[in-house]
Amino acid sequence: MSTPTLRVLPLGGLGEIGKNMTVVELDDRIIIVDVGLRFPTAEMVGIDLVLPDFSYLRDRIDDIEAIVVTHGHEDHLGALPWILRDLKTQDIPIYGGPLTMAMARSKLDEHRLRDVECIDTKDGERYQIGPFELEMVHMTHSIPDASAVVLRNAAGTVLFTGDYKFDQTPVDGNPADIARLAEIGKEGVTLLCGDSTNVDRAGWSLSESVAGPHLEEVFSRCDGRIIVTCFASNIHRVQQVVDAAAALNRKVALIGRSMKKNTNIGKSLGHIDLPDGIQIQPREIDQFPDHKVVVVSTGSQGEPLSALRRMAYKDHHQVQLKKGDTIVFSATPIPGNERAVNETVDRLYEMGCTVITTKDAPIHASGHGYAEEVKLMLNLTKPTYVMPFHGDHKRIQMHADLAEAVGVPAANIFKGENGKPLQIDGKGARFVDKVQSGVIYVDGVDLGEEADAALRDRRMLAGDGIFVVVATISEQTGESVADPEVIFRGVPYSVDEEQLIDEIRDGVDASLIQAAKDGVHDLDALQSILHDDLAALVFKKLKRRPMVMPVVVEV
Amino acid sequence: MSTPTLRVLPLGGLGEIGKNMTVVELDDRIIIVDVGLRFPTAEMVGIDLVLPDFSYLRDRIDDIEAIVVTHGHEDHLGALPWILRDLKTQDIPIYGGPLTMAMARSKLDEHRLRDVECIDTKDGERYQIGPFELEMVHMTHSIPDASAVVLRNAAGTVLFTGDYKFDQTPVDGNPADIARLAEIGKEGVTLLCGDSTNVDRAGWSLSESVAGPHLEEVFSRCDGRIIVTCFASNIHRVQQVVDAAAALNRKVALIGRSMKKNTNIGKSLGHIDLPDGIQIQPREIDQFPDHKVVVVSTGSQGEPLSALRRMAYKDHHQVQLKKGDTIVFSATPIPGNERAVNETVDRLYEMGCTVITTKDAPIHASGHGYAEEVKLMLNLTKPTYVMPFHGDHKRIQMHADLAEAVGVPAANIFKGENGKPLQIDGKGARFVDKVQSGVIYVDGVDLGEEADAALRDRRMLAGDGIFVVVATISEQTGESVADPEVIFRGVPYSVDEEQLIDEIRDGVDASLIQAAKDGVHDLDALQSILHDDLAALVFKKLKRRPMVMPVVVEV
Repeated sequence: MSTPTLRVLPLGGLGEIGKNMTVVELDDRIIIVDVGLRFPTAEMVGIDLVLPDFSYLRDRIDDIEAIVVTHGHEDHLGALPWILRDLKTQDIPIYGGPLTMAMARSKLDEHRLRDVECIDTKDGERYQIGPFELEMVHMTHSIPDASAVVLRNAAGTVLFTGDYKFDQTPVDGNPADIARLAEIGKEGVTLLCGDSTNVDRAGWSLSESVAGPHLEEVFSRCDGRIIVTCFASNIHRVQQVVDAAAALNRKVALIGRSMKKNTNIGKSLGHIDLPDGIQIQPREIDQFPDHKVVVVSTGSQGEPLSALRRMAYKDHHQVQLKKGDTIVFSATPIPGNERAVNETVDRLYEMGCTVITTKDAPIHASGHGYAEEVKLMLNLTKPTYVMPFHGDHKRIQMHADLAEAVGVPAANIFKGENGKPLQIDGKGARFVDKVQSGVIYVDGVDLGEEADAALRDRRMLAGDGIFVVVATISEQTGESVADPEVIFRGVPYSVDEEQLIDEIRDGVDASLIQAAKDGVHDLDALQSILHDDLAALVFKKLKRRPMVMPVVVEV
Repeated sequence: MSTPTLRVLPLGGLGEIGKNMTVVELDDRIIIVDVGLRFPTAEMVGIDLVLPDFSYLRDRIDDIEAIVVTHGHEDHLGALPWILRDLKTQDIPIYGGPLTMAMARSKLDEHRLRDVECIDTKDGERYQIGPFELEMVHMTHSIPDASAVVLRNAAGTVLFTGDYKFDQTPVDGNPADIARLAEIGKEGVTLLCGDSTNVDRAGWSLSESVAGPHLEEVFSRCDGRIIVTCFASNIHRVQQVVDAAAALNRKVALIGRSMKKNTNIGKSLGHIDLPDGIQIQPREIDQFPDHKVVVVSTGSQGEPLSALRRMAYKDHHQVQLKKGDTIVFSATPIPGNERAVNETVDRLYEMGCTVITTKDAPIHASGHGYAEEVKLMLNLTKPTYVMPFHGDHKRIQMHADLAEAVGVPAANIFKGENGKPLQIDGKGARFVDKVQSGVIYVDGVDLGEEADAALRDRRMLAGDGIFVVVATISEQTGESVADPEVIFRGVPYSVDEEQLIDEIRDGVDASLIQAAKDGVHDLDALQSILHDDLAALVFKKLKRRPMVMPVVVEV
């Protein structure tokens, strides 16, 4: 019998290894851990979502045993509908905790993918999936029902931590299962793929339950309305806001689609408990005195269409902010969102509102463990090999340094990259040849490879604008039979406009005459010649390089 | 004799009042305080610089007595060439400290504005400029030669703090002139326009001279090359880097155009002292052992064309970074630059470099005073009226709160906005009607109002791409005489391309037939009809709104 070959292949994450999706292969059987998405950066003009490139899986559909999801955040499950649409199948079962699967089902429903089997896992149970045995281990994170994923197989045990922190006092009283991690460590972990998000922070993360009393303390100093914003999926945070409101005899209104949806899912699964009569509808807010109301809203990241952003721009139909309102940001900006958050905050000040952020009081706790927690994970699981996950190069390096510090030999620590499989077999562990990886942009209503080319074009259009030149020529003679049309958009001209257009027209005529002399009659060739000649002329005149689009019409 | 009327009109600054330019008018005579620019945000695609809108001044050129510049930073003097070009004059004298004027002259030279009179001021001297008496008061900031501007006039004394901190141990041993501020306060200050940048930070800012010993301590732990990045204009910081290098027997190479230029100006004016033999040329770096070299580079903000960014992207011809190099960020990211800085840092980690930032050691001190310093300024100058400057709505509000806290009556505190003049006359102080204000975008080689429209077009192009449709019609009949050309760029299509183009062609023909029936023959009208019809058709098919550009050619 030949030795089995295990490959762990991180495939998702813009600049962060293994953040959104990882493919685990034993010989030719596949389990996928997480299928998440990313939100675009400001430079990705007009792009709505960023997905992992699924092409590696397109010829392997029949080899895929299952997808396992660690927790319900968008960057770990948001691309589930997209992978199924891309692979044109609903025949891959999805495993995950009950809340995670409730969120997955809701997402799949929106895409009308109603035939997908979503299997609620129970922590500690074992699930045989092809040649893999799956076990989920309870972890704590900024969403309930987060799990580490253990995949036992003939080549060794792989442990994905997922996103986690070792919160000793989580809001639901159910800390991460350190005992089980220790047992699995004793059994033997071949490879640990661990979260690196906060590895650059020294010490131990703040417990989620620290936020509650501070929220209540902040609320107790407010005379007017209170609007709290936090991540909609942070169900325990919403619980703490509700508890603080209840303690101060305030009603609670939930605003924002995802806030209502997640709270409903959380309620139905027992993760959140709203005392009787505390919840009011957004339309009822004005029926209560200001000091009796807490609004919980989406928009903590300054997202353009979020409820809080709309309130700040006086564009929300249910909440009109006013002097005396206090807006509490119970979240910190994700790197890259600082400007959008600052803009929102400043609008709120302009309206005369008071704004409380995490700088004013400890009203937020990160969901990712700090350096000491990463070390504890390494010491509990005692892995033979370590491949740090969820981090940029800096964090991967720092995680590797911590692994060495707790005694993992440097040769057993693998700093990976997306698309590069780590192979484990009888000869040990090593990286093997890269496979196709990257991202796919989703733009508006649909996705596709065209979006990539379109994005390149749009960057060019955005940078320098466009020149359209229409030349009308005679089919018989190739001569110009009408004045060339010259139109530009997005090009600021520093020279006389009329003169520039005249020069371009002359340039078109000159190019056409030269082309006729050279015996060029093919329309594509003519357009190509015009493009090059005009681009050179425009650069000479304007010192800029707009897109030049020549159109030759034969009549 | 009628009572003189004083107006203080902040005109520059994107979302920050009075940051870049302020117009001071006594009756009809004008002094301008600072003429700075801003750098574009990521959303301003293809824009190079953002200037104050100078239109208010265009009819008032003969009324302008002078420009006074508080210090040499780009956001306070960077638009000097642009205002002079806009107003088509070199006949406005410019006042400022010697370093500030050296920087101004260098900038004006680049724009070939060599006839402008730049007058080096001396702190404490009085300059009669039309109906104003100017006095500069020595302040400390993150560039030498920063001054507060006192404008005495018949309607009262106005004091602009400029950017400042009360550094008790500045690197040149010359603290802000608190005694003179106190004297001026005793004489009587009618209006204080004070810096609010760090008003949200409690306490007192760190002294610049704290950075030096920490830089040396960081350097002493490095075995390889050290590359330090800081603002090129922070001449005292460069001095401290040089001192730390000297203490550890390392040579210093300066990299980046502005780093060399500012250090040269600083040397010629005695603000920086490079020990003999310490400076080496960039091309000589490789001739010295790694542990004997410190490189001082631009790029602390992750600027795309800066030396450090190029090094991080293996694109710098003189410095090839390698494992063992330590890169020291002796600056913090300006809000909005976080992503660019993070990207640079991560590239450095990818190359195996060590990166030290202000999170690792106190190797940077802000140039702006904190809340206690703002209170000290208020107490020293005892102004009748206060108009907080240099801040967004949040900081303006916080500055106003501090002014109230030290005893300024709320009615005497004016929360202004750009374009809104504060008028002071016999009847006290009040805001009067807004004037034209805003920003002008500089795009590539030149500026102009077109850039504004071009920016709007480019945003649209960037968001959804462009459709160009060329219809060729007979001059006689108005009928289509060639198949319409349909071309698109930057539009990802989710439907069959051929079919979409056919439908658009049919749409063009239908619109033309309808227009002919309706008796429309005017080309502009035809294009307008085509635009509306096609935009509707495209939206129906693609659910997106690219720019639609119809071209009708008559033959």
